[in-house]
Amino acid sequence: MRHKRFWQKFLDMKNKLYIVKIGGNVLNDPTTLIQLLHDFLQLDGQKILVHGGGKKATELATKLGVNSQMIEGRRVTDLESLEIATMVYAGLINTNLVAQIQAMNQMAIGLSGADFSLLLAKKREVDKIDYGFVGDVVTVNKDPLNLLLNAGMIPVVCALSHDGNGQLLNTNADTVAAELAKALSKDFEVELNYVFEKNGVFLNVEDEGSKCASLSQMDCVDLVQKQLIFDGMLPKLKNCFEAKKAGVEHVRVGGVQSLLHPEEFSTEIKLS
Amino acid sequence: MRHKRFWQKFLDMKNKLYIVKIGGNVLNDPTTLIQLLHDFLQLDGQKILVHGGGKKATELATKLGVNSQMIEGRRVTDLESLEIATMVYAGLINTNLVAQIQAMNQMAIGLSGADFSLLLAKKREVDKIDYGFVGDVVTVNKDPLNLLLNAGMIPVVCALSHDGNGQLLNTNADTVAAELAKALSKDFEVELNYVFEKNGVFLNVEDEGSKCASLSQMDCVDLVQKQLIFDGMLPKLKNCFEAKKAGVEHVRVGGVQSLLHPEEFSTEIKLS
Repeated sequence: MRHKRFWQKFLDMKNKLYIVKIGGNVLNDPTTLIQLLHDFLQLDGQKILVHGGGKKATELATKLGVNSQMIEGRRVTDLESLEIATMVYAGLINTNLVAQIQAMNQMAIGLSGADFSLLLAKKREVDKIDYGFVGDVVTVNKDPLNLLLNAGMIPVVCALSHDGNGQLLNTNADTVAAELAKALSKDFEVELNYVFEKNGVFLNVEDEGSKCASLSQMDCVDLVQKQLIFDGMLPKLKNCFEAKKAGVEHVRVGGVQSLLHPEEFSTEIKLS
Repeated sequence: MRHKRFWQKFLDMKNKLYIVKIGGNVLNDPTTLIQLLHDFLQLDGQKILVHGGGKKATELATKLGVNSQMIEGRRVTDLESLEIATMVYAGLINTNLVAQIQAMNQMAIGLSGADFSLLLAKKREVDKIDYGFVGDVVTVNKDPLNLLLNAGMIPVVCALSHDGNGQLLNTNADTVAAELAKALSKDFEVELNYVFEKNGVFLNVEDEGSKCASLSQMDCVDLVQKQLIFDGMLPKLKNCFEAKKAGVEHVRVGGVQSLLHPEEFSTEIKLS
């Protein structure tokens, strides 16, 4: 009986999968980006990179005289903004990231949510706010993604989904990372890492020593009430908690050094 | 002995692979594009779509105040033009084509030459003309491409290669299609179709009845001397003859209806 349990446990062992989401501040600094990619490739397990690119999209929009509107930290996406997002996310940033990873002798493949319907989404219904061409993910088509992972490829996924009728949609990159993590947590032991401009969640932004080692939902409610968590951080943490609830093993928010040194440079998200 | 030969022939049979390259005129007209994609998906065999997008790139360059220089039908690619090409080819056009094919219930995957180093290229050396960030294909990494094809995916490939050191390069889309056809002709019975603005090669542009059913290298030399073939058509035909020489089964240049009706709407390229 003990033997059976031992083997059962062994058979149930899942491979490790790191899902790392990188944001605008990292993408805009070539030196930091290269260092981060080096760290990323050192992680011992299968890997998916997810990226946004809002800042570069805003730059291009400005050059083209297109106004990007933001409501509650989310971009409003009209048709022109969607074209810009498609060019910047799926074109400029994604293809260059793939070329950079290839230069480090790893096999990368760039994906948007339209590729083999990886991210099938529903255009967000207009409630109080019309977010335009923004998609909420309905299904993740994980089997072809598993095929790529098993072939030794590193998927590099940009923040675009599609509606299945030929319409591309803009989906927040944090959400894309969380949706992938949730879907793949059935097949892998997933570590979801959000790399952003801070080394975690701090009780006092002025005090480096005040970093939370971990953050639970209760802590979060408390910090929101004390106005220590606000703005763009809230949807990010919402994604983190949803991923944890869906069975993702580890979820962390942290700085560019957090991939190899999570304890020092990130906050781990916990349910309780 | 006869039986052995029969089985040998059977065992040697290769699957059919259609490689279809579509150019700017098709990409710029949504109705024509949808019809062409429908025809493309009806082809009975495995499929790869290759696309350019020079006209859309020129439009964006104009909006951004970047001048696109052309020498002998080839785009000169400075760093700004390369960024524009990357955004338009790998972003706007590629991702939308993938979403359109998915809407027709087929599994598509968008690729640039950087993905799993599909198209490893060498930056063209400066001779008389400096073409800038233009790449001549050195190797096609066909094994991962075969993996995708065997998984039932339709690769949609844009006209970008990379140098293996992180630098993306612009490569003519006709050449990309020819290089893929050449590399895959070892594994497949390849049909390479160039879809462009005319229904083939004509002896008299005014006379619909003067279409060449086929065109050999000898014919071609003759027509060039008579100035019936010129400009952008020459590099296209050069790609065609190189593909034929490398063992590609059928090579055709034709109009948007040529995929389902090659005899009426295309010219077949032959070596002799």
